[in-house]
Amino acid sequence: MPLLVVGSIALDSVETPFGRREDVLGGSATYFSTAASFFGPVRLVATVGDDFPQEHVEFLAGRGVDVSGLERRAGRTFRWKGRYEFDLNQAHTLDTQLNVFADFKPELPAGYRGSEYVFLGNIDPDLQRRVLEQVRSPRFVACDTMNFWIQSKRDSLLETLRRVDMLFVNDAEARQLADEHNVVKAARRILTFGPRALVVKRGEYGALLFTGEHVFAASAYPLAALFDPTGAGDSFAGGFMGYLASRGREDVDVMRRAIVLGGVLASFAVEQFSLERLKTLTRDEIRARYAEFRRLTHFDDLELDLFEKGAAGR
Amino acid sequence: MPLLVVGSIALDSVETPFGRREDVLGGSATYFSTAASFFGPVRLVATVGDDFPQEHVEFLAGRGVDVSGLERRAGRTFRWKGRYEFDLNQAHTLDTQLNVFADFKPELPAGYRGSEYVFLGNIDPDLQRRVLEQVRSPRFVACDTMNFWIQSKRDSLLETLRRVDMLFVNDAEARQLADEHNVVKAARRILTFGPRALVVKRGEYGALLFTGEHVFAASAYPLAALFDPTGAGDSFAGGFMGYLASRGREDVDVMRRAIVLGGVLASFAVEQFSLERLKTLTRDEIRARYAEFRRLTHFDDLELDLFEKGAAGR
Repeated sequence: MPLLVVGSIALDSVETPFGRREDVLGGSATYFSTAASFFGPVRLVATVGDDFPQEHVEFLAGRGVDVSGLERRAGRTFRWKGRYEFDLNQAHTLDTQLNVFADFKPELPAGYRGSEYVFLGNIDPDLQRRVLEQVRSPRFVACDTMNFWIQSKRDSLLETLRRVDMLFVNDAEARQLADEHNVVKAARRILTFGPRALVVKRGEYGALLFTGEHVFAASAYPLAALFDPTGAGDSFAGGFMGYLASRGREDVDVMRRAIVLGGVLASFAVEQFSLERLKTLTRDEIRARYAEFRRLTHFDDLELDLFEKGAAGR
Repeated sequence: MPLLVVGSIALDSVETPFGRREDVLGGSATYFSTAASFFGPVRLVATVGDDFPQEHVEFLAGRGVDVSGLERRAGRTFRWKGRYEFDLNQAHTLDTQLNVFADFKPELPAGYRGSEYVFLGNIDPDLQRRVLEQVRSPRFVACDTMNFWIQSKRDSLLETLRRVDMLFVNDAEARQLADEHNVVKAARRILTFGPRALVVKRGEYGALLFTGEHVFAASAYPLAALFDPTGAGDSFAGGFMGYLASRGREDVDVMRRAIVLGGVLASFAVEQFSLERLKTLTRDEIRARYAEFRRLTHFDDLELDLFEKGAAGR
């Protein structure tokens, strides 16, 4: 079923202990679309400047991403510059130039308005609702957000949350949004704000999925080859939503597989700079890593004789 | 099969955001023994002062812990005082009084020398080897250590590591020991130091098990009721080693169940102060939480049609 994404497209300049790149393809909607495109068609709403290389647009279109909602405006493309230290866990933003992204007013082409799956990337919550108002009757809406909106536009964010089915945040954002340190209690509180499902991303430690009745813990794949974490969270969301949209179901079993596939896509995204690894990725590699995740995390049912005769205990 | 543990017994004074306790039962060997005792008999080697309440000794003996190796000396028992802030992740040590523990020279009663499973708690690596020299032919030896020994007695620690089958450390310790930030690379390096298995404990995020060929990721149970993290790591090791010793096998399937059971015991230990929760814990509760861990982490094999017809990708 059609999947719509609205978010940023950027030219990133990234420095890690392993190297640096200037003005390479980045942005939340870019990683999301590419990751989701392995599972089905994606409709993209974003804006770029007149300096944006056409080869990137062609790359996305070549992956089955509908770019009719990609607006090209006079001016420069959004630029982000960041550095990662050895721990690779936290991005240190060196420079942000919003450029044409500062005036982004998402407009959906008529052909997008029937989209059934919608992902509202990390943009102003006012704009997230502006997108929702243009979609006729979405079946499943997920959104992302960040500390900046939680702090500066809390009321608007809460209004958006009342209208979405699912929220993706990291653990610090979950704590901040719920004003509660314990992540389980924070999750329970957030589920009273509107969404019926919540993913708490924990970087190299994996992710937790909370629904009203269920909790699911997905481990991250322990990588020796972690290279550039930029885009990991967006690739995760793209793998998740891409799989969900391809199934047309949102029961717990599908969500569990979706969160694992999100982790699979994220684990590939971070193996090289920018979208380099996602560009060469194949479905067979996705299948193989999904199987590795299973081997990594599964364990037997206990035998009936968990406790030996003669052991203490009640 | 008999399981021997050497380590500390302490009287802890603990402060958390939820309350405080003075001079309550603590120490690595105490948590370890109690957790392991659910699976079979434990032989304890430790030292306490003449101020140590006899009721604690009787508690351990009542759980099937052989206390003939518990030495009672003139002087005061080891005391540790610590505080946890709201994140509950890191203990801030306020005071350490080694007292009789400063002169601890572990001596094994004759009846302990045939022990097949051995856990060398976090003590001076010289003393860890002193214990090993008194055990005739152990089948499986595991040890714990900490940043203090990694830094101040590295050569001695490496000598101990050459003689053990398994090491338990947290992720910061693994990085420090291997001098390598990436935890996968750090683990690979540590496995060249001697142990054939390594557990990297990650607190609220779970644990990783590395062997020469396998990696296993165990999630921690997401707790709303986290109360006092003291003893979590020792309860984890106790559950792990207790189960291993009860099986008399160390293949990968048994180790996977053992690491999950370690997580189960740790998840109970932190629900109340000191050993209060472990004291009321039952085998049925352990079985039930093991089953909850499975529900928490397991997901289906992918259907054959992971990728829908018509999706992009190769």
